[in-house]
Amino acid sequence: MALLVQKFGGTSVGDPDRMRAVADHVARTVRRGNQVVVVISAMGKETDELIRIAKEVSDTRPGREMDMLVTAGERKATALLCMAIADLGVEAESFTGSQAGFLTDSTHTNAKIIAVEPDRIRASLAAGRVAVVGGAQGRSVDNNVTFLGRGGSDTTAVALAHALGADSCELYTDVPGVFTSDPRLVSDARKMEHITFDELLEMTANGCPKPAMRSVEYARTHGVELHVRSAFTWEPGTVVTKESTTMEQAIVSAVVHDADEAKVTIGGVADRPGVAAHVFRALADADINVDLIVQNTSEQGVTDISFTVPHGELTTAVSICEVAGAEVGFTRVTAEPAIARVSVVGAGMKSHPGVAATVFETLAANDINIEMIATSAIRVSCVVAEADIERAVVALHDAFGLASGPVYVD
Amino acid sequence: MALLVQKFGGTSVGDPDRMRAVADHVARTVRRGNQVVVVISAMGKETDELIRIAKEVSDTRPGREMDMLVTAGERKATALLCMAIADLGVEAESFTGSQAGFLTDSTHTNAKIIAVEPDRIRASLAAGRVAVVGGAQGRSVDNNVTFLGRGGSDTTAVALAHALGADSCELYTDVPGVFTSDPRLVSDARKMEHITFDELLEMTANGCPKPAMRSVEYARTHGVELHVRSAFTWEPGTVVTKESTTMEQAIVSAVVHDADEAKVTIGGVADRPGVAAHVFRALADADINVDLIVQNTSEQGVTDISFTVPHGELTTAVSICEVAGAEVGFTRVTAEPAIARVSVVGAGMKSHPGVAATVFETLAANDINIEMIATSAIRVSCVVAEADIERAVVALHDAFGLASGPVYVD
Repeated sequence: MALLVQKFGGTSVGDPDRMRAVADHVARTVRRGNQVVVVISAMGKETDELIRIAKEVSDTRPGREMDMLVTAGERKATALLCMAIADLGVEAESFTGSQAGFLTDSTHTNAKIIAVEPDRIRASLAAGRVAVVGGAQGRSVDNNVTFLGRGGSDTTAVALAHALGADSCELYTDVPGVFTSDPRLVSDARKMEHITFDELLEMTANGCPKPAMRSVEYARTHGVELHVRSAFTWEPGTVVTKESTTMEQAIVSAVVHDADEAKVTIGGVADRPGVAAHVFRALADADINVDLIVQNTSEQGVTDISFTVPHGELTTAVSICEVAGAEVGFTRVTAEPAIARVSVVGAGMKSHPGVAATVFETLAANDINIEMIATSAIRVSCVVAEADIERAVVALHDAFGLASGPVYVD
Repeated sequence: MALLVQKFGGTSVGDPDRMRAVADHVARTVRRGNQVVVVISAMGKETDELIRIAKEVSDTRPGREMDMLVTAGERKATALLCMAIADLGVEAESFTGSQAGFLTDSTHTNAKIIAVEPDRIRASLAAGRVAVVGGAQGRSVDNNVTFLGRGGSDTTAVALAHALGADSCELYTDVPGVFTSDPRLVSDARKMEHITFDELLEMTANGCPKPAMRSVEYARTHGVELHVRSAFTWEPGTVVTKESTTMEQAIVSAVVHDADEAKVTIGGVADRPGVAAHVFRALADADINVDLIVQNTSEQGVTDISFTVPHGELTTAVSICEVAGAEVGFTRVTAEPAIARVSVVGAGMKSHPGVAATVFETLAANDINIEMIATSAIRVSCVVAEADIERAVVALHDAFGLASGPVYVD
């Protein structure tokens, strides 16, 4: 008998039919002899809808009240799922985050978990029941209702799996697992059986629509095995684990891309301490989500700095740079909206030089110009023209032979 | 400085505009130097909507989960109202029934209050804030979320007013107070300044759309002064108090009516012990809401029993009586859907004989036939043909001179 935590997102419980389908899946898991704890998000677009009403009612929207409001969404979903499970002859009990023992700090709308004490969940399992827990919820040290923020349901599932010592934390999505590349672009993209936390983190950070980074980091830190899989098949998905010495490491696991980026270049920057700090502090203060940053070697005391931001934040980012430019003195700010990023990720490239070279050669052979390059120990990212991104992804997926299985470090 | 509990129903907070109007009313009450605790219901038809979704998702609908579900409605409303109050520069905090200290039994969907320990509400008031409490909610002794049932928000308000020692419990409705008769029928119906709990209980039991009976009984038992008033004027409404020796008692306070009733007569009933018990137990087991029951004097060992039920339950009631008739032996069951009831209510009639006679004379003078009569110490009710009900109400309101003020016991 295994103890499983199963997390379903808002789309998976978006309407009564889907709710019953999830209930069926949970009931079958129980009938196969497992103990099950379910974590779910609010139904469909309900969280957005609650925020929309709040905006209609109020201009100030204090965080404490926003959290009381949005947690109504998961509360509703957990109760409905329990009813649907009960219809199948399996006893189920809903729990708010507070009831499930999630103690958080008081940062309303984006609270951090301090401790998880799931005594009531253990009691529910011991009584032979399914426990259904509202995702992204908790109770603050001063006893107010808190919300963990968007993507918080993944974190709830992982933290609960850790606290209960669950055998696996299953994150159900609308895709069957993590692929070597986006199957919509690359026809022979392959579902991976295994991936490491580090690889998944590099992928989620690079536009792969996968579990919230915070939950993956939590799982890595606490050694919680994740299983990313489809809600509507029994086929196994992708298992995410720490890398181990016995496990072979793929040199390159996946080619991922992100087309929702734009590039800003500030040119003629005086090459002295504090200039870059001034600019990026101003961007951070405005909550601009800066991603890649590249600075070229200084020539004659001036340099260029380029960085990428989400498309939606480009105009604001450029304005801030222009103001900062006037303050610290640089000559020009240019924006390029039509760019995209392709990244090659693999835990084995740490010990296997030459991956970057293969990336550059492949793009060159396909006549694709590279505008920016950035690397980490297990990732090589290139910014290219948006028009070239599909060709770049397909070419790289092919160059590393990902369709036929990973090439392992020998 | 007074401590006021203000209760607003679902219609009063049915949309963002109304929500802001209630917030404005609360903020003004605070600015006049009062401490305010607000109790609200779910917005508009939200509770119905949640129940509708539950029916779509599940056939079994366990009570524990229904309570978790429907309490999401008040939770949402309390948070939104706090936001709207905050916009007006007044600090407000929302509380669930559990947070507000409502301890209940475990009768899910219709829980009873065991104790109210509003420590957090007191702390909120002491900090200069408005406390906004979700109506009809509590926490059971085994720590589950409970719902007090329909009309439970009135009970929450009254119980909280009692526990806090509030100066008044204001129940806001869409009418300016309690009237001597239905103003839609009686053009010179007058809003009453005062009414006793006993009178209000007889009125609510007789189709007057006023506070839930349970809350009025709670207020009477614990001596909580109620103030039934309109949400959208500052004009005082009707104050409901225990009768006191110093207060004059009106012989007749009001003429109320109920057109949503139907009459069932079972004829040829053997006049021996247990027959009536058998019939009314069968009706009670089927949750038929029997109201007036009249049994005539026995003639030659058989008698007739008539009773009234809501229109919607007439068919079921007749079927049950036919089955019961076969079991205990009576000769016929007849149904009369087109009846209505008019009641004359007044605390002073206890010590002032002749009210019943005036009622009968007035109806006779207007050529209105009386089908059933039932009385209590402070009420005389007559069932008449539905077609006669408007004329009956107007005639009685006039006969007791209610338009020009009550006639007091001398």
